Amino acid sequence: MEVIYGVNPLKEALISGRGGVEKIVLARGRTEAAIREIRILAAQQGVPVEVRERSHLDELTGKASHQGVLGICRAYHYQDLDAVIANRHPSCLYDLVLILDGITDPHNLGALIRTAHCFGANGVILPEHRAASVTATVIKTSAGAVRHLPVARVANMARALDELKTRGFWIFGADAQASQSVSAPDYSGAVGLVMGAEGKGMRPLIRKKCDFLISIPMLGKIDSLNVSVSAGIVLHEIRRKQSRHPAGQR
Amino acid sequence: MEVIYGVNPLKEALISGRGGVEKIVLARGRTEAAIREIRILAAQQGVPVEVRERSHLDELTGKASHQGVLGICRAYHYQDLDAVIANRHPSCLYDLVLILDGITDPHNLGALIRTAHCFGANGVILPEHRAASVTATVIKTSAGAVRHLPVARVANMARALDELKTRGFWIFGADAQASQSVSAPDYSGAVGLVMGAEGKGMRPLIRKKCDFLISIPMLGKIDSLNVSVSAGIVLHEIRRKQSRHPAGQR
Repeated sequence: MEVIYGVNPLKEALISGRGGVEKIVLARGRTEAAIREIRILAAQQGVPVEVRERSHLDELTGKASHQGVLGICRAYHYQDLDAVIANRHPSCLYDLVLILDGITDPHNLGALIRTAHCFGANGVILPEHRAASVTATVIKTSAGAVRHLPVARVANMARALDELKTRGFWIFGADAQASQSVSAPDYSGAVGLVMGAEGKGMRPLIRKKCDFLISIPMLGKIDSLNVSVSAGIVLHEIRRKQSRHPAGQR
Repeated sequence: MEVIYGVNPLKEALISGRGGVEKIVLARGRTEAAIREIRILAAQQGVPVEVRERSHLDELTGKASHQGVLGICRAYHYQDLDAVIANRHPSCLYDLVLILDGITDPHNLGALIRTAHCFGANGVILPEHRAASVTATVIKTSAGAVRHLPVARVANMARALDELKTRGFWIFGADAQASQSVSAPDYSGAVGLVMGAEGKGMRPLIRKKCDFLISIPMLGKIDSLNVSVSAGIVLHEIRRKQSRHPAGQR
């Protein structure tokens, strides 16, 4: 069982229909427009609504900022690698998959999924072990993007990269030490972008599997951006360069 | 009084000397390399070190993840607008100031300051009211960048923008509705970049003050990135375009 909380994530889950929302719980006394909208969506989709004391919602969310509304959902349904590969954005000529090698902070994971969705990625690949998985916090931080974008979990990340290569993907790894700038490649073709763990970067085996390593030119004394900021910059550069190819973006 | 916690933020504060660390508190039993390094830095700078029970550190930080080490500091010292304007990065020909119109989440504020520092910004300008200020959480999330980059608070943001214009700055505002892409301008000259509040964007008066509005081209059903991700993309684009001018980057 998963709990989605907050007005926007819950609306996203109800609208996309992918949320698997089985019941909605509202805090007593909430009647404003956003809540009415959720009630209408719930009625349209036959999802029951329960009104409870605020303390009950606090308990279900571990006192997170639930804004007086939550949805109880089926457990998050991961997709497999094939489903991610098949999910090319309709207005993009090139596949783009975001591969996260060991992100542990759920806020970062949520922001990364949101960013991947905003740039029309096919989906996101996570390792099964030693990494954050899709929880209520991730769903909230993703602003509901988790409901629009397939996320796959793989037991063996190196093998998943080999599989992507077999399917014609070029694997780019973001590495602060890389001499090639993120703005240098033209990114024509299917791209798999690997981002490493917070502070630690990619594991050596995963780094070796990359066809290209790229870095973001920086000027500060602290030389590392937050991983979701880095990913945003790289994904933006990939789509920007691809759109300059004659056939890059439809 | 401010509390800085976590190994890296505290090291940054001690190394930069700007932190104003007056005392260090270590949790009993911590002896590993990172802690020894902090002890050495403290000794070099004459900062006293106290060893206390972990519960005492929990209390001082509100149970944040302090990693068994914290520094008690003088209150954060804001700079004025002039100090920000004067702080051009030595390897950049062009000034770059980040102006935040009403960021309320301390994690976002910390990430924004960190990102501004990584791209060699002069500094950051915040409004005095209705916005997050520099707290221990901000210092931690900024990975210590707050100690390297001047942050000014201004009572009247519109007047601060006028002042920047008088000093030769072009004001760019990030606005999801703008028709001009972030990659279109060449950003030659001094740049003030305005980012609006989470979810709400810039206030209308501030938007009107902008010389140019720019947006990040996106493809998703959810059309908004996290504000720190957006700022990272725009700051990267500004520095990338500036570095392509013959005299853009020394």
